[in-house]
Amino acid sequence: MAGNTFGQAFKLTTFGESHGIAIGGIIDGCPAGIKIDFAAVQRDLDRRKPGQSKIVTQRKESDTVEFLSGIFEGVTTGTPIGFQIVNENQKSKDYSHIADSYRPSHADKTYTDKYGTRDYRGGGRSSARETACRVVAGAVAKQMLSSIQFHAYTSSVGDLKMDKPYQELDFAEIENNAVRCADSAFAKACEEKILQVRKAGDTIGGVVSCVIQNVPPSLGEPVFDKLHADLGKAMLSINAVKGFEYGSGFAGSAMLGSEHNDLYNADGSTKTNYSGGIQGGISNGMDIYFSVAFKPVATIMQSQSTIDKDGNATEMQGKGRHDPCVVPRAVPIVEAMAALVLADHFLRNKTSKV
Amino acid sequence: MAGNTFGQAFKLTTFGESHGIAIGGIIDGCPAGIKIDFAAVQRDLDRRKPGQSKIVTQRKESDTVEFLSGIFEGVTTGTPIGFQIVNENQKSKDYSHIADSYRPSHADKTYTDKYGTRDYRGGGRSSARETACRVVAGAVAKQMLSSIQFHAYTSSVGDLKMDKPYQELDFAEIENNAVRCADSAFAKACEEKILQVRKAGDTIGGVVSCVIQNVPPSLGEPVFDKLHADLGKAMLSINAVKGFEYGSGFAGSAMLGSEHNDLYNADGSTKTNYSGGIQGGISNGMDIYFSVAFKPVATIMQSQSTIDKDGNATEMQGKGRHDPCVVPRAVPIVEAMAALVLADHFLRNKTSKV
Amino acid sequence: MAGNTFGQAFKLTTFGESHGIAIGGIIDGCPAGIKIDFAAVQRDLDRRKPGQSKIVTQRKESDTVEFLSGIFEGVTTGTPIGFQIVNENQKSKDYSHIADSYRPSHADKTYTDKYGTRDYRGGGRSSARETACRVVAGAVAKQMLSSIQFHAYTSSVGDLKMDKPYQELDFAEIENNAVRCADSAFAKACEEKILQVRKAGDTIGGVVSCVIQNVPPSLGEPVFDKLHADLGKAMLSINAVKGFEYGSGFAGSAMLGSEHNDLYNADGSTKTNYSGGIQGGISNGMDIYFSVAFKPVATIMQSQSTIDKDGNATEMQGKGRHDPCVVPRAVPIVEAMAALVLADHFLRNKTSKV
Amino acid sequence: MAGNTFGQAFKLTTFGESHGIAIGGIIDGCPAGIKIDFAAVQRDLDRRKPGQSKIVTQRKESDTVEFLSGIFEGVTTGTPIGFQIVNENQKSKDYSHIADSYRPSHADKTYTDKYGTRDYRGGGRSSARETACRVVAGAVAKQMLSSIQFHAYTSSVGDLKMDKPYQELDFAEIENNAVRCADSAFAKACEEKILQVRKAGDTIGGVVSCVIQNVPPSLGEPVFDKLHADLGKAMLSINAVKGFEYGSGFAGSAMLGSEHNDLYNADGSTKTNYSGGIQGGISNGMDIYFSVAFKPVATIMQSQSTIDKDGNATEMQGKGRHDPCVVPRAVPIVEAMAALVLADHFLRNKTSKV
Repeated sequence: MAGNTFGQAFKLTTFGESHGIAIGGIIDGCPAGIKIDFAAVQRDLDRRKPGQSKIVTQRKESDTVEFLSGIFEGVTTGTPIGFQIVNENQKSKDYSHIADSYRPSHADKTYTDKYGTRDYRGGGRSSARETACRVVAGAVAKQMLSSIQFHAYTSSVGDLKMDKPYQELDFAEIENNAVRCADSAFAKACEEKILQVRKAGDTIGGVVSCVIQNVPPSLGEPVFDKLHADLGKAMLSINAVKGFEYGSGFAGSAMLGSEHNDLYNADGSTKTNYSGGIQGGISNGMDIYFSVAFKPVATIMQSQSTIDKDGNATEMQGKGRHDPCVVPRAVPIVEAMAALVLADHFLRNKTSKV
Repeated sequence: MAGNTFGQAFKLTTFGESHGIAIGGIIDGCPAGIKIDFAAVQRDLDRRKPGQSKIVTQRKESDTVEFLSGIFEGVTTGTPIGFQIVNENQKSKDYSHIADSYRPSHADKTYTDKYGTRDYRGGGRSSARETACRVVAGAVAKQMLSSIQFHAYTSSVGDLKMDKPYQELDFAEIENNAVRCADSAFAKACEEKILQVRKAGDTIGGVVSCVIQNVPPSLGEPVFDKLHADLGKAMLSINAVKGFEYGSGFAGSAMLGSEHNDLYNADGSTKTNYSGGIQGGISNGMDIYFSVAFKPVATIMQSQSTIDKDGNATEMQGKGRHDPCVVPRAVPIVEAMAALVLADHFLRNKTSKV
Repeated sequence: MAGNTFGQAFKLTTFGESHGIAIGGIIDGCPAGIKIDFAAVQRDLDRRKPGQSKIVTQRKESDTVEFLSGIFEGVTTGTPIGFQIVNENQKSKDYSHIADSYRPSHADKTYTDKYGTRDYRGGGRSSARETACRVVAGAVAKQMLSSIQFHAYTSSVGDLKMDKPYQELDFAEIENNAVRCADSAFAKACEEKILQVRKAGDTIGGVVSCVIQNVPPSLGEPVFDKLHADLGKAMLSINAVKGFEYGSGFAGSAMLGSEHNDLYNADGSTKTNYSGGIQGGISNGMDIYFSVAFKPVATIMQSQSTIDKDGNATEMQGKGRHDPCVVPRAVPIVEAMAALVLADHFLRNKTSKV
Repeated sequence: MAGNTFGQAFKLTTFGESHGIAIGGIIDGCPAGIKIDFAAVQRDLDRRKPGQSKIVTQRKESDTVEFLSGIFEGVTTGTPIGFQIVNENQKSKDYSHIADSYRPSHADKTYTDKYGTRDYRGGGRSSARETACRVVAGAVAKQMLSSIQFHAYTSSVGDLKMDKPYQELDFAEIENNAVRCADSAFAKACEEKILQVRKAGDTIGGVVSCVIQNVPPSLGEPVFDKLHADLGKAMLSINAVKGFEYGSGFAGSAMLGSEHNDLYNADGSTKTNYSGGIQGGISNGMDIYFSVAFKPVATIMQSQSTIDKDGNATEMQGKGRHDPCVVPRAVPIVEAMAALVLADHFLRNKTSKV
């Protein structure tokens, strides 16, 4: 039982390898009657694509999405939305250096062990290229949830951490810098850090945070499909993610109940929001906020020792153009996955009362 | 579309409110041929039950599980395993103080908003009492996965944090202290901290860590149902959880790729294990380890201001016997959910090759 | 991956063997706010239970349902509804004659081959006793769909076939006779037939038809989960069913398009209803009607040759009290499964438009 | 919650409208290691395509499938298999006659009522063109199940019914005649009947039967996902199907238990096979056989009265090239759906024992 579908009511199934003919997906369950802004979908894709700034991989891919069904005269019809992104340059590269050897901290060996085979070209199915499909579907989900705002941004790069509470940030700043920080001074520091790491042929990790505003109450399905549990799964399913926390997060585990409890205002809002907009797994109308930890990219421009499929020691060095830090391009992916989770729970909640 | 089922191949569906007639569940998909050690199941339940030590709630509940089907002559038959735990003392208490008011940082208000009603007795469905059912199912899952070892333990209470790497811990120590630490000195410090917090009528958060050993390779289903994504969802679905990290976790986001990459030994094992036993969402045979952050229990023995269902301000104080810190009793729950995830992926993996 | 759950939005999972401690189930997804008429649920169960007339099995079982959760002060809360029916007389019978031998046209051998074991007492999980749980859940579904009428009735017993179109039947007659025909003269003929067959120690098949009135339009989800496809699956999942047809059915395959097409009235209703109330898999507001073929009960009171688990020839004769014809007791089961399908699609349809 | 996915372990999700850019699908869960015979896939598609003989629609569509992912160097990799069939001639036709009016016994009105809109070009999503995707996936499923034989064939056209038991048929004959009968004399009669009906501008229904040989025992998951219940749902989800029966079917309901019971041979096979190869929902290794009733095609070349979207009476006449009888082209679709069901249950059964 494979796992290429996300969601139950707003369902995304993706297919495709990084160097196959195309990647794509099917969105099933998108309600009828949504006017699609195709340019907005492509805009989100462009935020994820390679080559957009000097701190990301310099590969050139246009990543143009084609919708194949489910939209008629610009409006969704309630039928499945098929889409694809044709892979350019998908052939003739030399992958012999990874065909028989396993790149450290990549999925080469686990795929081979699990399936007995793998498409070794550029990571195949395990490549983060697959996330482009998530961005497409997330963009559609956002259009369904047009009254909700999703703001993801880089909140740390390596040991540089932004300390400000999100309320003091300027989300309008996010797209003004290559790192996608909501603070221009911090962005500058991060950018320098990334360039320095790249120069050393190395890579570095980081954290993406996300704030979701104007969330309607009542989204989330206890007991297993709590809203934050599905957000956590969504984020952890993104390549290179090592951790997720929401609301008070890990820091909340060091607090006292008397500090941590969110007392009510008369209108039902809360004075503090350590709960992160979710209580008992159900949204309460306050801002949802969470953070996602990304490890450093595994492909480095330094020689590393590894083994081949027969267990023989060998040396390997990253080739091609890779990201020195994944977080700037991960920002739209985090946003997309958050939108998919909320879209799914928005639809699921429609059945909670008669 | 409600969310009371966990898993796809090894599926647990639970029912029950804290003060209804019974709680229980159905395990569907447990393979035939597993000899059930009923005493071991009850032992895990007893580790979760109230009243077992002076640092947990002093409520007395025997929490005896009855299996109703799916096991014949002590062996699973491949048919659904129904079970229940009858609620003792389920009647006649006075819940008038929470019938119309919303306890801060509880699910009272979100349930009422979502469903238009709620069973207000003791938290009803949102009570952590539901997790007893998870412990039952997890105990069955462990028996299916008899060669795998699950070791959960308390790794922090409030700002007390255990710094040792797990390799230096003695898992045999876990059940020797009330806090369920794998280190007796640290356990003592935690116990004192919890008693001190309780004396103040307050509560405190903490962290449970878990190490899973002897995991077979190839568990996990890319791209959405990565093994760690399902572990994360499982943990985040436990009451009071605010964060999850595995392998290098949030700390890994501050590392360089050249530090973080796990280089291979000739036998396919890795020299380091920042990956936490999972690469590309698939287990690689190394130890899986992760941590789960719990917030402080919301019910405190201090007066708090809150609102009633009409938005009028009111005062409220916790009644009854509640846990000052949830982590000692959460340890078997974390273990149970980990076992459910691995059982599910163990079965799912059976279909990955012809 | 076992198959003990029916439905996606209104989900029933059942457990239990005929001679285990109890049978029962969990309804997950029933919306909050439905006032439950417990007597009506029990009434449907009583229509299914053994011993209610001289043409069904004379076993005495009270089949009393207990609800364990999900209903508070008589109203559904949106949380899972757990229920059970305790098995009376579940012990001490002599099943040695079927422990090691396979009853012809029963599931004894296929269960043993599939699972390597089976609970042989009275058929275990393969017993039609499991359908009592379906009747409970169906009764709850009917209460959610209170404006829809479900009328199932016996339309043939052996070669006795009722030729009248359903519009000429008196549904009020169904519960006035033991056969559950909607026509008293035909009922009398069927009853005589069944008594005659029983006297010969034999059994006989029959057909149950069902008419559903006042169905709202728009239920059904193309392309795979067409309303009639899910009705068909529901009916075929009932023990002993060999066929399903709806609307014009098999007879429709002999018609011309010019005869078969249902022309529209100005109000959108159709002049004829060969479509059976469903077009393109979606209800159109006209009556839904279908028929379900049941084979003769496999347990006969005659000696039959069979084999034991080692392939040795042996003789076997039905013991105990069994139904000579399944259809009178199948009528409420057909109704229940129809209600489950419509409840599920009623909820699923809530997400088809924004 | 839409319904465009079939199967749980071997899952097909389809997309596409008859006159959109493309139709296609994703097969998720196909195990790794299957060598794909692309020509065999295309061969099955060619059996379904229009224009292949004088008794089917004369539209010309090449229906060429392109595989986009999941197959590397001709072998499945365990990752999702994306595929598409580009629609030729998808533009510029005149559909004004159906844009605002509802064709009788089509899905025009139910789609419009359900979704508030529809792609009216050629039936859009409700067109049987979608079944081409099922044929592609079914062909892949057959290659996974290479030891099983699927033989579907036309067994009736209108009131012409083939009376021979399937054991007397020559399956090799099926592809030798345009009707796809397994008997040349009967094929000839059917062909004449269809031509005569077409000449009258009318259409006619028919029945497709299917025999599956060499089925391994133990496929099927009680109690809801019985093998025949899933076969029934699969068949009923095909456009124009009105009924399904397996084994003794509706005729079995007129039999006595003493006639109908399938007695065992010493090797565990049965002397008769009224059970149709399935007992208790689980395959027993005997031949599976079933029949599927198709209504006459709704589009006829005669003028019919109907209504427009405002309820005004109007006249409508079929345009273009349509099938006078659907069964010859339905044969490969029935086979494909049967293969999908068996593939799904083949994988699901892998988890029934430890």
